[in-house]
Amino acid sequence: MTRQLNIRRSTGLKWRVSIPEGFRELTEALGFARANGPWFEKIENGRVMRGFLPGTQHANALGIVHGGMLAAFLDSAMGRAVWHTLRRRSVTLRLSVDYLGPAKVGDWLQAEGEVVGHDEHVAQVRGRLYGRRHEVLAGLGSFTLLSRQRTLNTRS
Amino acid sequence: MTRQLNIRRSTGLKWRVSIPEGFRELTEALGFARANGPWFEKIENGRVMRGFLPGTQHANALGIVHGGMLAAFLDSAMGRAVWHTLRRRSVTLRLSVDYLGPAKVGDWLQAEGEVVGHDEHVAQVRGRLYGRRHEVLAGLGSFTLLSRQRTLNTRS
Repeated sequence: MTRQLNIRRSTGLKWRVSIPEGFRELTEALGFARANGPWFEKIENGRVMRGFLPGTQHANALGIVHGGMLAAFLDSAMGRAVWHTLRRRSVTLRLSVDYLGPAKVGDWLQAEGEVVGHDEHVAQVRGRLYGRRHEVLAGLGSFTLLSRQRTLNTRS
Repeated sequence: MTRQLNIRRSTGLKWRVSIPEGFRELTEALGFARANGPWFEKIENGRVMRGFLPGTQHANALGIVHGGMLAAFLDSAMGRAVWHTLRRRSVTLRLSVDYLGPAKVGDWLQAEGEVVGHDEHVAQVRGRLYGRRHEVLAGLGSFTLLSRQRTLNTRS
């Protein structure tokens, strides 16, 4: 079943948009993720994907999705990939993003990360953020792996 | 006069925090900046600085300020520096950020950018985001300069 989400377009009209099959809403999200949500997640063939529907609250003054919002969402998907692959919580140490194309309000976006290398302390992650028809961001990041003790004491 | 701002701490109690002298609230902010605001700005000695007071809505699951939120705020300050220096609107083409230290909820943060080079199409910008006592992010970015025509037709 394809779920529907009401979002408010810049026209002020509510508009019903489809959430792609298999995505669940991250209802446990807190802080920034909750304030800028709802965010969605899907695990498929061992990969974890995040998705969201940008609204006017995610836009910049030009009316397209704010570049910082896109970087923040990609960062979260890359950190999630670290957890999914290594079962370690992490914090971003370095993040580099290339903006390949704009993202429109109302167009579903997805992001995912891939752990391409790691030692006991740091993971190297490649990330991409994309719409239905085009790539939006390419990312490369280093994530500091938190101690396993701390991982046990904090939320996933 | 030092202005005061009520922010909600994780305790649920309201807490009064000082906004440093000379900062004005960006009441004209839209979209992402409004949803994640209030943001403040100060121009001093030809430099433009942005500031904000992170609340729990800016935090990650560890309770510190979300790395993506920090990158987004630095990006906005760097884009603002492009406007301030070149009077051209811009969109981010590439952004690289290094996380130098964590930022706590309730601690005032500032960010600023410096245009270190540009041609007719692209500006190179160095940025920093910092708290009262420590550096938080170092950034380096390339910003595509929009046509002067487009600049005239959009908001600053």
